[in-house]
Amino acid sequence: MIKITFPDNSTREYEAGVTGLQIAESISPRLAKEVLSVSVNDTVIDLDRPITTDAAIKLHKWDDAEGKHTFWHSSAHVMAEALQNLYPGVKFGIGPAIENGFYYDIDLPEGTQISESDFANIEAEFMKIAATKTQFVRCDVTKAEALKFFGDKNETYKVELINDLEDGTISFYKQGNFTDLCRGPHLHDSSVIKAFKLLSIAGAYWRGDEKRKQLTRVYAITFPQKKQLDEYLVLLEEAKKRDHRKIGKEMELFTFSAKVGQGLPLWLPKGADLRDRLEQFLRKIQKQYGYLQVVTPHIGNKELYVTSGHWAKYGKDSFRPIQTPQEGEEYLLKPMNCPHHCEIYRSKPHSYKDLPLRFAEFGTVYRYEQSGELHGLTRVRSFTQDDAHLFCRPDQLKEEFCKVIDIILYVFKTLDFKDFTAQVSLRDPNNREKYIGTDENWAKAESAIIEAAEEKGLPTVVELGEAAFYGPKLDFMVKDAIGRKWQLGTIQVDYNLPERFGLEYVGSDNQNHRPVMIHRAPFGSLERFVAVLLEHTGGKLPLWLTPEQVSILPISEKYNDFAQSVSNILNNYDIRAAVDERNEKIGRKIRDNEVKRIPYMLIVGEKEAATNTVSVRRQGAADLGSMSIEDFAKLVTDEVNEILKK
Amino acid sequence: MIKITFPDNSTREYEAGVTGLQIAESISPRLAKEVLSVSVNDTVIDLDRPITTDAAIKLHKWDDAEGKHTFWHSSAHVMAEALQNLYPGVKFGIGPAIENGFYYDIDLPEGTQISESDFANIEAEFMKIAATKTQFVRCDVTKAEALKFFGDKNETYKVELINDLEDGTISFYKQGNFTDLCRGPHLHDSSVIKAFKLLSIAGAYWRGDEKRKQLTRVYAITFPQKKQLDEYLVLLEEAKKRDHRKIGKEMELFTFSAKVGQGLPLWLPKGADLRDRLEQFLRKIQKQYGYLQVVTPHIGNKELYVTSGHWAKYGKDSFRPIQTPQEGEEYLLKPMNCPHHCEIYRSKPHSYKDLPLRFAEFGTVYRYEQSGELHGLTRVRSFTQDDAHLFCRPDQLKEEFCKVIDIILYVFKTLDFKDFTAQVSLRDPNNREKYIGTDENWAKAESAIIEAAEEKGLPTVVELGEAAFYGPKLDFMVKDAIGRKWQLGTIQVDYNLPERFGLEYVGSDNQNHRPVMIHRAPFGSLERFVAVLLEHTGGKLPLWLTPEQVSILPISEKYNDFAQSVSNILNNYDIRAAVDERNEKIGRKIRDNEVKRIPYMLIVGEKEAATNTVSVRRQGAADLGSMSIEDFAKLVTDEVNEILKK
Repeated sequence: MIKITFPDNSTREYEAGVTGLQIAESISPRLAKEVLSVSVNDTVIDLDRPITTDAAIKLHKWDDAEGKHTFWHSSAHVMAEALQNLYPGVKFGIGPAIENGFYYDIDLPEGTQISESDFANIEAEFMKIAATKTQFVRCDVTKAEALKFFGDKNETYKVELINDLEDGTISFYKQGNFTDLCRGPHLHDSSVIKAFKLLSIAGAYWRGDEKRKQLTRVYAITFPQKKQLDEYLVLLEEAKKRDHRKIGKEMELFTFSAKVGQGLPLWLPKGADLRDRLEQFLRKIQKQYGYLQVVTPHIGNKELYVTSGHWAKYGKDSFRPIQTPQEGEEYLLKPMNCPHHCEIYRSKPHSYKDLPLRFAEFGTVYRYEQSGELHGLTRVRSFTQDDAHLFCRPDQLKEEFCKVIDIILYVFKTLDFKDFTAQVSLRDPNNREKYIGTDENWAKAESAIIEAAEEKGLPTVVELGEAAFYGPKLDFMVKDAIGRKWQLGTIQVDYNLPERFGLEYVGSDNQNHRPVMIHRAPFGSLERFVAVLLEHTGGKLPLWLTPEQVSILPISEKYNDFAQSVSNILNNYDIRAAVDERNEKIGRKIRDNEVKRIPYMLIVGEKEAATNTVSVRRQGAADLGSMSIEDFAKLVTDEVNEILKK
Repeated sequence: MIKITFPDNSTREYEAGVTGLQIAESISPRLAKEVLSVSVNDTVIDLDRPITTDAAIKLHKWDDAEGKHTFWHSSAHVMAEALQNLYPGVKFGIGPAIENGFYYDIDLPEGTQISESDFANIEAEFMKIAATKTQFVRCDVTKAEALKFFGDKNETYKVELINDLEDGTISFYKQGNFTDLCRGPHLHDSSVIKAFKLLSIAGAYWRGDEKRKQLTRVYAITFPQKKQLDEYLVLLEEAKKRDHRKIGKEMELFTFSAKVGQGLPLWLPKGADLRDRLEQFLRKIQKQYGYLQVVTPHIGNKELYVTSGHWAKYGKDSFRPIQTPQEGEEYLLKPMNCPHHCEIYRSKPHSYKDLPLRFAEFGTVYRYEQSGELHGLTRVRSFTQDDAHLFCRPDQLKEEFCKVIDIILYVFKTLDFKDFTAQVSLRDPNNREKYIGTDENWAKAESAIIEAAEEKGLPTVVELGEAAFYGPKLDFMVKDAIGRKWQLGTIQVDYNLPERFGLEYVGSDNQNHRPVMIHRAPFGSLERFVAVLLEHTGGKLPLWLTPEQVSILPISEKYNDFAQSVSNILNNYDIRAAVDERNEKIGRKIRDNEVKRIPYMLIVGEKEAATNTVSVRRQGAADLGSMSIEDFAKLVTDEVNEILKK
């Protein structure tokens, strides 16, 4: 008998050689139907592999990331079988599960290609195979067998992959007529796959190498219920409408230029205004919390990053060093602001009475990303962090954490992110040697974070082993309006940089001590934050933030002057209003201003000009009717103040 | 007879072979005494060289840059003679006139060196030689003669210089016992040099090459009157007190770090605050003038600068290109913002109705300077331009110029620069092929600038031939509180970039037209402007601008709470006040706060706490006595509003 420990720490005894599926059956028939794979001592395996020793297990269902991963990985194999049936002679590259679904890279036979008109056909073939309840059967093979098998089939890509593997570690998975080189794990059989959708086709170089052949990457997704696919397609459609790249264009917020370079956003006037408003908003609250703004250059001598350790760790994957034309110096585009801030800290001696020191900077940093990875404002090569580094004594950690949490919660409230969780990432207690810093300091920092999160009533998940090597951290995950999760806001303790830069303060004991450093960024970066905000709100930004709050639409050119006077009055109330003076029909003006997501439209014509009033339309609401300009100004001002109040 | 034309276009006839000195004598004996050198058809020559053909001449006195240059160049020869007398075996490098005085690079005999204690001795030797009325005698020599002469004397540096010269172009100048390889021109004789001061000693690599020997550079200055030297020394002393590097340190505005890199300022909290205030100040006025802020990255693809022409012109002297680790891309640190702004202009089509478009950015740019050239904030490798690019129709040029002048005049007024001139730089009318753009456009732009400057009542100097190749410009030179001149503020017309980037707008005629571009920067750069401001004001910044307006000094710790309550009240009035809570004597606190150049100090003790008042000390003024906190707040607010009003 072996002892099986479940996630709730309960245990049961089973015969050695019991499988995950049998364990599930022993608990409930329903669970046995739903279970997709099983983790045994943190390794995910097939449901029908025997478990031979005492083990901690977790049964994975669709709701787990691991369950989905197994589901989609098996689906990729089924899709490959379908493609093999439909396109005899097709050769296969790799076919992994990804965040949403899976893909397979294939090399289609000469002269064939897949277009959207073929999708239905492939989908039908997939569902036909899935319905056969085909089983996924694993077998271990020698390298020689593997090479012969795929060599005979002329599967050149698989042969190349096998050549890189070590003999004794190679396995195949087979279902129906299809056998794949694969580590697994897989589903028991295909019958749980109830819905399949081929999403898109793209080109992808074999092994990401632009000098090798471009294969066809087939993206698809599957679900255990048809209903889930329907919901997903609605979500996709909704996400498409909310795509920040589309909204950014419609609202004229940012653009890109091939000549300036890919992944380097150019902020247009309205976008720069939005950015600036976010910046001023954060500056204001940070000032209240005693932050000190600093300004540092966007490059640093290579020596700076050798000191910080970044050069050793990231140097070769970064933008290459900048040489000077004389004097043989080497500079790097700064990938983060912390080393610069350490140098500011070092620029004069500090006493324990000076701490905490909170240096803040909206610092633009540069990180190389492959062009294929770039995406709108969420994956860029230059971005501006709303960065700050807090240098404090170990006994100040908890209070500083509480204050940073306050700022982040204020940001979330003001920007209408209601649904979030905080992840506390701690050391792996079994692997302490991986981390820098004394046990005492780690204990202090970890309990400071946990207590601060508790005190502030955060919905928290604790993850062991997820801390950075230099300290524990607290990350905020928000759910947007259509349920997608985004990581925003991070607070990290750092024992490493103070050590590497030799930072010190004189304690009350007159001895030198090392300060602790906290990195924190409530937005993360302005680029990413604006992207998330646009996708969350569909571009309907909060009134206090949006670049144009009010558009005044004269029903004909005759009322342009009155409209202008309304605009001037509103501007005097610090309301951002502008007149749409174009010689267009009022219906067209309303539609155009809706596309620009302007919260308030004021229609002005004969009646309004005569009575010195405005007709008010609120975005997404019914007409608010006519009111005096002053009443309208009060309406807007009250709405803004209500959101911004703490 | 030859015809000599004078600067006022009057002419006189002289015998061919007449010298500059003879011409001066023919005009007045006083002029003959004062004249130092003469320009003949724009080439400066010795006063005793014969003029053989019709020529336009200008006689240079001490007040001319050319006159000073001759004076100081001859002084360098006399100093060399003095050093040769005092340090037999010394070898000479080069000895040019510079902006303020001159230097000579010398290689002292093994075992000797010059220290401050030797200065008086050298000065005495110099004056002894000068008093002999030694004449500067020119003679042309062949290359072989020159090499032999200096070779025999083992003057290895001179021999090296001669080797680089072409035979037939080589001349010597001799005075007393000293002969130098020299192109001239020189004074007639040394008797006009009435005052000499050895200023400093520095190391300098031969030919600026760090692999060659380090020579001793001896800096000195001379004057035609003893009084002028005295005045100069007072000015030097005053300038030293106003050195922005010293003040910046005392006021904790900025610092440098060798690890971050030379010439890359780190702005400390108070400096960042000052910078930000300047930025917000300009943003506000620019917004009133219809400027649109944009934000662009600090790098650009090399292609961008190939298009702009900067790569061809400056590429090899700039920071080297940044390679990507993959994909073979090349980026440059941006040396200016204009190409990025052109790409923003190009991001959508424009109609004549949209113009002018005014894109503004506080854009940080990077330009390589040799480390020896770096100086505080005035010569740096990274600086933030208060940049804007105005894209307008040719017919809008004058109005745009007027508006930019308005902004610059407002800046000067608000920052107390009372003494300035505007230099209008136009095309060289005899060299039109050097410039890009049509005659018609140049005529339009030049008259637009001249008329705008006139309309705004600017004190103007017109310089022909000083325009950039791409357009005419208007530069502002300010005189600071101790009479030094600084170039601040520039407005430049540009026909080149719109051409190179193919910028267009659709005119009222429905045809495509090319916009004109104006570059302008009222501050120039924040770094340089802050430096000039600190040197101009000696750190006593205008009240509205200074980071700390009020320091509240409790006479003992007992009154810290009252002081804090005063500070809070003032903060509520948007007055930047802080309490000096240190446990120090009041006298010490006053002195320390004076060093920090805080405009108002409020002394609070028993009496003030009892009567809810403050005792007010204004920087550089008598005590203003006691007043209520509210009266003091009004005093400060009124003072600020008075300066900032337009």
